[in-house]
Amino acid sequence: MKIERKSPIYDGKSKTIFETDHENFVIQYFKDDATAFNAQKKGTILNKGLLNNQMSSQIFQYLGKIGIPSHFINQISEREMLVKKLSIIPVEVVVRNQAAGSLCKRLGIEKGKILHPPLVEYFLKNDGLGDPLVGEGQIFYFKWATPVELEYMKTVSLRVNEALLPIFKELGLLLVDFKLEFGKTHDGELLLADEFTLDGCRLWDVKTGESMDKDRFRHDLGKVNETYEEVSNRLTQYLTSQK
Amino acid sequence: MKIERKSPIYDGKSKTIFETDHENFVIQYFKDDATAFNAQKKGTILNKGLLNNQMSSQIFQYLGKIGIPSHFINQISEREMLVKKLSIIPVEVVVRNQAAGSLCKRLGIEKGKILHPPLVEYFLKNDGLGDPLVGEGQIFYFKWATPVELEYMKTVSLRVNEALLPIFKELGLLLVDFKLEFGKTHDGELLLADEFTLDGCRLWDVKTGESMDKDRFRHDLGKVNETYEEVSNRLTQYLTSQK
Repeated sequence: MKIERKSPIYDGKSKTIFETDHENFVIQYFKDDATAFNAQKKGTILNKGLLNNQMSSQIFQYLGKIGIPSHFINQISEREMLVKKLSIIPVEVVVRNQAAGSLCKRLGIEKGKILHPPLVEYFLKNDGLGDPLVGEGQIFYFKWATPVELEYMKTVSLRVNEALLPIFKELGLLLVDFKLEFGKTHDGELLLADEFTLDGCRLWDVKTGESMDKDRFRHDLGKVNETYEEVSNRLTQYLTSQK
Repeated sequence: MKIERKSPIYDGKSKTIFETDHENFVIQYFKDDATAFNAQKKGTILNKGLLNNQMSSQIFQYLGKIGIPSHFINQISEREMLVKKLSIIPVEVVVRNQAAGSLCKRLGIEKGKILHPPLVEYFLKNDGLGDPLVGEGQIFYFKWATPVELEYMKTVSLRVNEALLPIFKELGLLLVDFKLEFGKTHDGELLLADEFTLDGCRLWDVKTGESMDKDRFRHDLGKVNETYEEVSNRLTQYLTSQK
């Protein structure tokens, strides 16, 4: 089946979503644009779009194989991913295996503290408000997600964590934390959505502790695009070798 | 029984807690000191300590009569309240009947929006961190409260809301929101604690919409101590006339 790209329907910070000639499919186009600190810092990372598409496609494919469905259908070009059209649930799920980033500042927790079992946090997907932390009570009160939906999102997120932790460990990387989004298809199926990329996770080199993720861009640590390339390539090599 | 005041064991922003010669009782001494915006703004409000003690004592007594127990034992002087000694649960419960304050800024909700049923939010009691918002998941994860404790705290807070809404309405005041704290006695009883004062609630004049609470201090609206005096006196008069 040949799918034709139509007009853009959403232009985000790092991806553009295009309609297609199939009403239930859209195309995610991955850009090189990078933002940090609620878009106060802006830049581009060479080939990030391409590498993020590669990494996300590999991960969604792998998750699909082990029984965690997502909106992913196919990688259709270097920067394009064909996905099911969803209405996105405006709650981002963050899974944390070690304390880092906003958690440390917000709750005074030492960077690197092991969180076992992993801590799950929710954030409202709202750029204008800076994606604020929200609790279960608020999520249900304002009907951003139902209790059943949130439970599913949490459960899937923890399964994704269990699935990816050992893979990144094989690559010499600690999966410190990551963010997932979910959405519902036109007929109400709740699916893992969006992407899994270095833009939305933290990976620390097991030996050196060095950041191998977007923190290199956030904190001007250098070797930004090299890191995206290395992680994406290591992951692709590993996952294709396992097939 | 004569209770003797001993050394201070805790000196807070608006109260000092003293040991007594009875190991399970402490004295809450109400100060005139006022702080706002996480103690960035400091001042004093004439007679606030006295008026807060009066208002809190009246309310705890009333709640006790209608079956909502608290740590309150007795008002023992103008500024002193004898209470059961508790270990405070580090989670503040906020009940909101209309949107105001941090909620509006955090979630972009219009000031005054009716929240029916009331919205319940939780904040970590931690001055150093600025009392950050926390969700149920974090509260259980970090063991700040158990699910059973939090459920009790939420239920009691909503009952307090139902009990006080009509009383303040009789006084021409809308109970917009309020904060409660809870603690456990030495033998594990979970009790409503701390205080109920204009420092920790919002009251709007039914007719004029004017703030009749600590927002007068926060936002330099004038007539600060007069407002504390008027609300405390109206409430005392009303509750004693109902006896």
